[in-house]
Amino acid sequence: MKRVGNNIKVIDTTCRDGMHAVAHQFTPEQIGQLAAGLEKAGVDYMEVSHGDGLGGSSINYGFGAASDKEWLTAARMELKNTKLAAMFLPGIGTMDDLRMAKDCGVEMIRVTVHCTEADITKQHVGLIRQLGMTPFGVLMMTHMVEPEKLLEQALLFQDYGAEVVYMMDSAGYLMPEQVKARVSLLAEKLDIPVGFHAHANLQMQLPNTLAALECGASYTDGTLRGLGAGAGNTPTEVLAAVLLRNGYESGLNLHAAEDAAELLAKMDIFVPPCADAAAITIGYAGVYGSFARHAKNAALKYGVDARDILYACGERKVVGGQEDIIIEEAVKLAKKQSKN
Amino acid sequence: MKRVGNNIKVIDTTCRDGMHAVAHQFTPEQIGQLAAGLEKAGVDYMEVSHGDGLGGSSINYGFGAASDKEWLTAARMELKNTKLAAMFLPGIGTMDDLRMAKDCGVEMIRVTVHCTEADITKQHVGLIRQLGMTPFGVLMMTHMVEPEKLLEQALLFQDYGAEVVYMMDSAGYLMPEQVKARVSLLAEKLDIPVGFHAHANLQMQLPNTLAALECGASYTDGTLRGLGAGAGNTPTEVLAAVLLRNGYESGLNLHAAEDAAELLAKMDIFVPPCADAAAITIGYAGVYGSFARHAKNAALKYGVDARDILYACGERKVVGGQEDIIIEEAVKLAKKQSKN
Repeated sequence: MKRVGNNIKVIDTTCRDGMHAVAHQFTPEQIGQLAAGLEKAGVDYMEVSHGDGLGGSSINYGFGAASDKEWLTAARMELKNTKLAAMFLPGIGTMDDLRMAKDCGVEMIRVTVHCTEADITKQHVGLIRQLGMTPFGVLMMTHMVEPEKLLEQALLFQDYGAEVVYMMDSAGYLMPEQVKARVSLLAEKLDIPVGFHAHANLQMQLPNTLAALECGASYTDGTLRGLGAGAGNTPTEVLAAVLLRNGYESGLNLHAAEDAAELLAKMDIFVPPCADAAAITIGYAGVYGSFARHAKNAALKYGVDARDILYACGERKVVGGQEDIIIEEAVKLAKKQSKN
Repeated sequence: MKRVGNNIKVIDTTCRDGMHAVAHQFTPEQIGQLAAGLEKAGVDYMEVSHGDGLGGSSINYGFGAASDKEWLTAARMELKNTKLAAMFLPGIGTMDDLRMAKDCGVEMIRVTVHCTEADITKQHVGLIRQLGMTPFGVLMMTHMVEPEKLLEQALLFQDYGAEVVYMMDSAGYLMPEQVKARVSLLAEKLDIPVGFHAHANLQMQLPNTLAALECGASYTDGTLRGLGAGAGNTPTEVLAAVLLRNGYESGLNLHAAEDAAELLAKMDIFVPPCADAAAITIGYAGVYGSFARHAKNAALKYGVDARDILYACGERKVVGGQEDIIIEEAVKLAKKQSKN
């Protein structure tokens, strides 16, 4: 379904994707302050949870400074027009986490999977609807497959009852033409709206977002000051200005969004996002963000350049869960190096 | 002259535009370290001088931690393949500064004026040639006039003997279509190459740069980590990745550029550039960057929002030198406020 008119819905995910940038250490008090700022800024949805979604707090993904319940409760108290949302990754979160979210007043859940795995989400999407919340479907790492494959996966989400399907450029790899090819196919063939979530690894977050909107996406994401995994996301306050400039309507108030961003920037916890060597490599090689740390460790151990390991993983289209290949490639590079 | 082939020349201006971001406080030692990094990164030119060009060090523009001569000398010692360049603004720099630059081994000078004032540069461009250096012409704030006016000004530079004409989007105001309209006309009608210098106020630095290259620009600028006035510039290291991805050739080495950026990021003086409220306002309203400070002062004095002053200045197309209008608009806003 092509977007009707120029109205764009904005999800601010400072308190979910931005969690990655602060090692999930926002306090409930900070979440409450940001919620108040985002309510004034007029974002349609505020997404709150551990960076890896509900239930992400663990030795594997990093412990949060508070529980999802504490964070959601703090946000809930400040929100009126802005809807409260949470992210959910099947395999990390559980059905109980969904029930907890409902009890906290969450109105929308983004069910998020690797771009080829929508088929595992049927029961979660179903339960979310059953609990009276709105399910959105999210496909990650969408640069890794062709538009036709994404459409197939998006149709599964639609069949299961998702009300919006999001395309994430998780690695910040895509160029605008590639975004257009993907979003335009989805917007044409789906009966539900399409969303796009950008990353700033190659600093193409704004042009990619504009490309998506131009092709019919009607939802997009921002975070205050671009706070997010890797090089971060589209800054909500810059998005507000750029939407206005390009003739799109949204609920965003530019000055209030700038003020909310200043609020975040003044928090002790804030570290400005940055396209550093690791982030550029993720974006250029098109590999999973969390590989960077593993590659760095392997690079130290085997005396090779972490970037070369990541490029090799990109070429092999390695996905999350295949971290053993990082070691394999490091060993290969070390052998090659010792021969030279 | 449309660019022949895909070869792009890159000027790194970390040690000139980036000077604004560090209040002109780079030490000669730091300049030397960055020069060594940029030489390895393979940039074609390294621009070094006070942020406001040769002779900028003053009570008006801010005193530098060293003289242009000391900075240039430090860079000169590290450069071999990368050419040494400096910026020159008539009215700030003098003919003696140009002679000093020649003595320091500067090979190229960018003569820089407001987009309607190329006619004051004839003698400077002439002297630069006479001294055996290469003159480039630079037009600032190019969003303020139509493409035809820019062409007229660029032709003056060409007539005077400039070997390249640069278009600066000083306020970071332009959208890609506006860049295309300007660059394509210049590229078509000039006999000399066209360059484009972006700013990140609305985070459109990369798409604007790509739009310029697509339309025939063959020179562009970067700074390490995007360090520069306001929200900064195109990061040289991200540019390296994005040029590669889009099939352009340049002398840039991606890993070495990333390494040079890390070098800068580790310096005590480094503050990451950021599209804060002031920078977004500059980009959205299309006003001169240095107005932000004046507007902030006037806002405090008259109890109004600095952003509203800047928007009013943008509408009136106020240019550098007309700072009194900032006060005028602040007074108007205060009166309007007291009536409500």
